[in-house]
Amino acid sequence: MRTVRFADSTGYVRRGTWSGDDIYTAGKTYKADNVDVLPPTEPTKIVCQAGGYMDHREESGLNDRPDRPELFLKTPNCVVAHGDAIELPPGRSRVEFEAEFGIVIGEQCRAVAKGDAMDVVAGYTCINDVSNRDDQEQERNWVRGKAFDSSLPMGPVVATPDEVPDDAALVLRQNGEVKQETTREHMIFSVEELVADVSELITLEAGDVIATGTPFGPDVLAEGDTVEVEFEGVGVLENHVTSR
Amino acid sequence: MRTVRFADSTGYVRRGTWSGDDIYTAGKTYKADNVDVLPPTEPTKIVCQAGGYMDHREESGLNDRPDRPELFLKTPNCVVAHGDAIELPPGRSRVEFEAEFGIVIGEQCRAVAKGDAMDVVAGYTCINDVSNRDDQEQERNWVRGKAFDSSLPMGPVVATPDEVPDDAALVLRQNGEVKQETTREHMIFSVEELVADVSELITLEAGDVIATGTPFGPDVLAEGDTVEVEFEGVGVLENHVTSR
Repeated sequence: MRTVRFADSTGYVRRGTWSGDDIYTAGKTYKADNVDVLPPTEPTKIVCQAGGYMDHREESGLNDRPDRPELFLKTPNCVVAHGDAIELPPGRSRVEFEAEFGIVIGEQCRAVAKGDAMDVVAGYTCINDVSNRDDQEQERNWVRGKAFDSSLPMGPVVATPDEVPDDAALVLRQNGEVKQETTREHMIFSVEELVADVSELITLEAGDVIATGTPFGPDVLAEGDTVEVEFEGVGVLENHVTSR
Repeated sequence: MRTVRFADSTGYVRRGTWSGDDIYTAGKTYKADNVDVLPPTEPTKIVCQAGGYMDHREESGLNDRPDRPELFLKTPNCVVAHGDAIELPPGRSRVEFEAEFGIVIGEQCRAVAKGDAMDVVAGYTCINDVSNRDDQEQERNWVRGKAFDSSLPMGPVVATPDEVPDDAALVLRQNGEVKQETTREHMIFSVEELVADVSELITLEAGDVIATGTPFGPDVLAEGDTVEVEFEGVGVLENHVTSR
């Protein structure tokens, strides 16, 4: 099942299942083109993995396999929806895309054992972990570099785990050209390992998101670009780039 | 004015002004001892400054004055109230207190000019930026080191800026003994500079908190400890230490 959160023509926030051109709710069917798609969850926190794929570690100068996931944080002001603008922060020249998929948490949990991790996973969504390298490279903690407004396009749906194959493809297209391409099988740590690790010391809430890291190939965004993240089983997250 | 958020005997969440032993609301007066004090705000994000006082920079091996504030993040799962337990994360031996004061934001804002910063400040609160050095020293971004559950005692009130003198004293006592002591005048960056800097790329919401950094003297907490952070004009934030 693919669940979308959207505003209907009156602005009322609804949830429905998205199939083809239609969104189905308990009472009504909507044409997907006629609704305002919202971020699929309202996370209280977004815990992100850095260096979760070996090919991206290598291009970043890291050749070792890590002992545990390297984490950083994004904040709710980062979140924008499918169809929204990615606004380039003023005065920065190197703002890059990063295709990822996100794990959406289904219930409040802490210290989840690896074997129980799938019990707390509601599903998966597409993520673009937009990164401001100008600041990131100067910061110890990546706050200006990662947590700026509109740096986390997310959506368009949450797909339940049964919709997403173990070897699900993750692809990023910039203005129609494929720039990043991998499958979930190339992750260093599994979904179960990430949920167990992140929840050890941090209570996760329903709707919270773990962004799982990006493969080889992040590159610079320019005003006017269209950028699509496609994760097999979830669909396509499309955003355009503007300046502030 | 000092505003406290609390639950009355029925569990209903209220706000009142705290003066002496009493809390006043529009309809009723409560004895402060009879209510359950809650965190004074529910922040969507907590942006923290590292190394905001020269004496703490020097004890951390940093002797330079920074060009701009160094930032890191805490998350809503960190927040606990006055009177709540600080729970030591399991298996960690070096969990330390850090006395700070927090700037509480009063309205949604972005790119606030330094000269306008006080317009968006609701007031100040006491903060204990509890830090897990075992993980912090291994991490690039301090997530396990700073964003673990109950690592952000906050309160007991939000005091409006007129209650807090420019040379307000900040003191931390561990089991009654003074361990940290400074005044607001020793901050490298002013409140106005912090608000302007943090809001440049990050939209702040009403209730969000900027934790302003700690002076010389963070030290290790042990199970059974009582730890108090006192900021002049706000009052005393008291918490006890337990293990999980």
